Amino acid sequence: MSKHFKNPKEGNIDNSGFGTNSAEEGGRLTNKDGTTNLRKTGMPVWDRISIYHTLIRMQRGPFLLLVFLFYTSINVIFASIYFINGVEHLIGNDGSQQPWRQFMDAFFFSAQTLTTVGYGHVAPTGMAANTVAAVESLIGILIFALVTGLFYGRFARPRAYLIFSDNVLVAPYKNGRAVMFRVATYKNNHLTDVSAQVTIAMHIIDDGKQVTRFYPLPLEISNVNSLALSWTVVHHLNEKSPLYGFTKQEILDARFELIISMKAFDDHFSNTVLQRTSYTYRELLYGERFLPMFHKADNGDYTILELDKINDHEAALVQEPEINTFA
Amino acid sequence: MSKHFKNPKEGNIDNSGFGTNSAEEGGRLTNKDGTTNLRKTGMPVWDRISIYHTLIRMQRGPFLLLVFLFYTSINVIFASIYFINGVEHLIGNDGSQQPWRQFMDAFFFSAQTLTTVGYGHVAPTGMAANTVAAVESLIGILIFALVTGLFYGRFARPRAYLIFSDNVLVAPYKNGRAVMFRVATYKNNHLTDVSAQVTIAMHIIDDGKQVTRFYPLPLEISNVNSLALSWTVVHHLNEKSPLYGFTKQEILDARFELIISMKAFDDHFSNTVLQRTSYTYRELLYGERFLPMFHKADNGDYTILELDKINDHEAALVQEPEINTFA
Amino acid sequence: MSKHFKNPKEGNIDNSGFGTNSAEEGGRLTNKDGTTNLRKTGMPVWDRISIYHTLIRMQRGPFLLLVFLFYTSINVIFASIYFINGVEHLIGNDGSQQPWRQFMDAFFFSAQTLTTVGYGHVAPTGMAANTVAAVESLIGILIFALVTGLFYGRFARPRAYLIFSDNVLVAPYKNGRAVMFRVATYKNNHLTDVSAQVTIAMHIIDDGKQVTRFYPLPLEISNVNSLALSWTVVHHLNEKSPLYGFTKQEILDARFELIISMKAFDDHFSNTVLQRTSYTYRELLYGERFLPMFHKADNGDYTILELDKINDHEAALVQEPEINTFA
Amino acid sequence: MSKHFKNPKEGNIDNSGFGTNSAEEGGRLTNKDGTTNLRKTGMPVWDRISIYHTLIRMQRGPFLLLVFLFYTSINVIFASIYFINGVEHLIGNDGSQQPWRQFMDAFFFSAQTLTTVGYGHVAPTGMAANTVAAVESLIGILIFALVTGLFYGRFARPRAYLIFSDNVLVAPYKNGRAVMFRVATYKNNHLTDVSAQVTIAMHIIDDGKQVTRFYPLPLEISNVNSLALSWTVVHHLNEKSPLYGFTKQEILDARFELIISMKAFDDHFSNTVLQRTSYTYRELLYGERFLPMFHKADNGDYTILELDKINDHEAALVQEPEINTFA
Repeated sequence: MSKHFKNPKEGNIDNSGFGTNSAEEGGRLTNKDGTTNLRKTGMPVWDRISIYHTLIRMQRGPFLLLVFLFYTSINVIFASIYFINGVEHLIGNDGSQQPWRQFMDAFFFSAQTLTTVGYGHVAPTGMAANTVAAVESLIGILIFALVTGLFYGRFARPRAYLIFSDNVLVAPYKNGRAVMFRVATYKNNHLTDVSAQVTIAMHIIDDGKQVTRFYPLPLEISNVNSLALSWTVVHHLNEKSPLYGFTKQEILDARFELIISMKAFDDHFSNTVLQRTSYTYRELLYGERFLPMFHKADNGDYTILELDKINDHEAALVQEPEINTFA
Repeated sequence: MSKHFKNPKEGNIDNSGFGTNSAEEGGRLTNKDGTTNLRKTGMPVWDRISIYHTLIRMQRGPFLLLVFLFYTSINVIFASIYFINGVEHLIGNDGSQQPWRQFMDAFFFSAQTLTTVGYGHVAPTGMAANTVAAVESLIGILIFALVTGLFYGRFARPRAYLIFSDNVLVAPYKNGRAVMFRVATYKNNHLTDVSAQVTIAMHIIDDGKQVTRFYPLPLEISNVNSLALSWTVVHHLNEKSPLYGFTKQEILDARFELIISMKAFDDHFSNTVLQRTSYTYRELLYGERFLPMFHKADNGDYTILELDKINDHEAALVQEPEINTFA
Repeated sequence: MSKHFKNPKEGNIDNSGFGTNSAEEGGRLTNKDGTTNLRKTGMPVWDRISIYHTLIRMQRGPFLLLVFLFYTSINVIFASIYFINGVEHLIGNDGSQQPWRQFMDAFFFSAQTLTTVGYGHVAPTGMAANTVAAVESLIGILIFALVTGLFYGRFARPRAYLIFSDNVLVAPYKNGRAVMFRVATYKNNHLTDVSAQVTIAMHIIDDGKQVTRFYPLPLEISNVNSLALSWTVVHHLNEKSPLYGFTKQEILDARFELIISMKAFDDHFSNTVLQRTSYTYRELLYGERFLPMFHKADNGDYTILELDKINDHEAALVQEPEINTFA
Repeated sequence: MSKHFKNPKEGNIDNSGFGTNSAEEGGRLTNKDGTTNLRKTGMPVWDRISIYHTLIRMQRGPFLLLVFLFYTSINVIFASIYFINGVEHLIGNDGSQQPWRQFMDAFFFSAQTLTTVGYGHVAPTGMAANTVAAVESLIGILIFALVTGLFYGRFARPRAYLIFSDNVLVAPYKNGRAVMFRVATYKNNHLTDVSAQVTIAMHIIDDGKQVTRFYPLPLEISNVNSLALSWTVVHHLNEKSPLYGFTKQEILDARFELIISMKAFDDHFSNTVLQRTSYTYRELLYGERFLPMFHKADNGDYTILELDKINDHEAALVQEPEINTFA
């Protein structure tokens, strides 16, 4: 394939953050959800994990389960301390002689202390129990600072809420061809100063070795003031394109990956939001064009954006490059 | 109208985030408050709604009502659990045999647990009631993390606090004409690095079809260091303007819409703030100019900005373009 | 004075956010602390006040007093409700028949509810008291969300912590003259990507009317990577300067004001910080130069920055412009 | 050494924030952890300390100890007030006549009030004790606003989590030589829009005086879209380099320091992150090149980044500059 490309090194930029030997066909560099297809080794797990990132990124279910388990564990620890110290120092306990009932009394007293509910029908007495309770309520405040901070942080985390078309199309464009995908916001959010960045990763044979080269794809429009409706991001297959002069078959055979990065400002989050995704050559459709996904409301007063039409496309004759001067 | 424009496609940028068939005369693209005049369909409502955006954007009254209803509902749910479990497990309850009084006892106990007030004159006893109470106080902490986060987030949300003149004027400017509107901050906030972006949407007949074209309007000054007083944003109707050479009547007839976006830095919010608005051709006044809206204080020590004068204007003779070479 | 300036309109930019008639000699545009010397009228006070800005900007003492008064007032309101409802519905009260003691019982119960301490030795009984208490604890949580948010927000508000030299100097520079002031961080903060912006406001007689014109002053270096030590910001009085060719007397007579804006990134605040100040012609010293304010430690291991030397300067002969071609 | 440099002033920029006389060989300007090697004097300690910066930057152990001591101190203060007022006003205390037991009763009651646990088995009675308790619970809420804000702020503080190679290498590059170091993220964080800035500080003899000059080092690539794997930052020793034409021995003898600043966007922190470090001439290895630190997984599905190989290098013949025209 590389024979068609004038100079495989020309225009190649290695500023993708991936390297030339980082992946091969089949091994996707960027996953569909925008994460990188990568594992790190060589340091202890603990050093390699950012607790903040892990907890912010975690699914909602596991996160809530973790909070619950954490809450239970801390109460078990403090319940054990109160139990060892003797439940007779928790006045108001039900006076049971059964150890497990005593432990549960200590457990519920711990929960009431940690959450600062502090009903007081059970209350500490004596130096030891009072000291442990005073420490526990301080620890409770600190721990719940993290838990509630993360809980709200997850809820209010700036996100772009973008949907992308499933496929990237090669469509007719300006007497030629263009690579296109479509993007829209799907929630009641509003993005301004939206910019798109597309990098193509191509697995090329260079000096007999398969290497991966990266080229930025110039876009017809790379920045929109406001992403109100849908935006069809267009890369014209002209002489500035690393795919210039490729025939249909050559494009279909090229084992490339498009790495997409969208950045915008959301004034409700008051923050920059970012979303990434990728397309591989398997997700390319040749000779298709997108159909409109919005129309005027019947009363003419507003515009309707139909999110389920983001993938709608129809066949469109694409003119093959006439002379392939590099063949 | 389009006949006067040298080339309706020249300078046209479709980076407004709206499309060519997105609206017609009458159907405003951007509302006066800066929101887009748009509805989305094709996905379940739940997927289309960002709870965060909805709650941050909501009016204060409905938001507080929602918080109150939410608080009541959760207490009703937990009260039901305590009630079903038997109020005899809430020691300190008033011993009433009437179910509704028992339910209210459970309800108020629930409220005391959820808010972590925990007076304790009513307190849980036994495994079941204690477990529910321990879970409820945890849930209370998590829920109030969202409620208080949103409550403060709404209060401290970075906003630009800008007022715009009601009308956009065509006034004499540099031996010619200019389109002008005026903007000022109306609160005790101070914006720095303020930039203005103006896009004109024009509904044009192209190939017999009505399409909407977008052009950025070049501004005489598009960025001010600090928005202390008022700022008259000026678009000179010179050869770089898509309205160049339009006669008074043609401008009045042009069914355009100006989409305004202001961006600035507020160092008390420590954040970027953004405000959007729009003007349609119905809000244009031809042959008027703004009167000053600030003056020196009598003692000469400071400047007075009169916010109620933001719309003050007077008639001003505008020189029509002499030769309309495109007619 | 304006006779010396080649063309009073040339280079004049009105992007300072002030206008030509905004101030006169004596009426400073920007105060020493960076606030603008400005009042707004024409809207009701309530609309003109951003509560957030007011409370964030307020001195610490008044802020704490306000919090205390607010706390007391809310308790007085709720105490009145409990009192009117009858303190017999607050079980555990001390049974006093004196109204003021009953009111104080209600007041302290209110405080315990609002802060969610909820000792419970006094507790509500009956529908009315319980309902009010349930509402009050909810209100308490919401109100303290604002109070604690503001309290921490004030504490953690990104600030630049810059000190400026008291005076702006005209010093010898590169076979000519330059206007200089000095700036440094005075806390254990570290600023990166620091940029300075200097605008000169000159009160000029134009067509017999006194107007204020604004010119950006080009700086020898307008951006430093990292503000570790002190930075002497230098405006060379060369042909690009609006003060070019001014004699010593003309500079001393020019009723100008320098408006300074410094912007930087603080990676502990993880935010952009901004500080503004100004110098008037009364704060200019002609023929002085700054003395170094840092030196190597005796053991050569680190550098010492002497903050009390920020104003240290000594007389330095400044070469007057030889030919004043504009006289 | 300076004799080899064409013009020691050419290209020199003093925008590093350090000055020409700020340090000497041995006195590092920037420490390995990115802090500046600097002390400030001339203002009272209190004015020179930002409490926020100090507490955010402090190690975890000392921070937690400080919180604990602060909590204890405040309780001691309030315990003293309750004690002086008489523990008979704390109903429910154990009636001990021993002063230290009475003080501890007061202490634990204070802790229960400050944390708003408020068991209520001990509760205030009478105007004085009730007033102090009402004030203490307000103070508790305000103080814990700072403590929990800082606690979460420290946890969620945007950080870059970058590791740098221990050494900076001079390696063969494009028929010449280049200075290189390597950087990677070591946690499960993902940085986008990563930019590197390298400044060289050279201690040069100028007019018989040793001065420090700063030059920005142009980089082959100074910005990557996404830092997925490792990034080898390369400064080519070509004619644009201040080290151009230096022989191996001259480079080894040059007492320089490289000041590195990396800036990026982390979309989980939704914020800009920044990390700084430095290399001195003692950390330079001449004639070495980095070995790859990542490879394809055996199943070809993903890429493995080996963090422990960040320093791996091997000897590589570096071609000396043929003609040293400046000797």
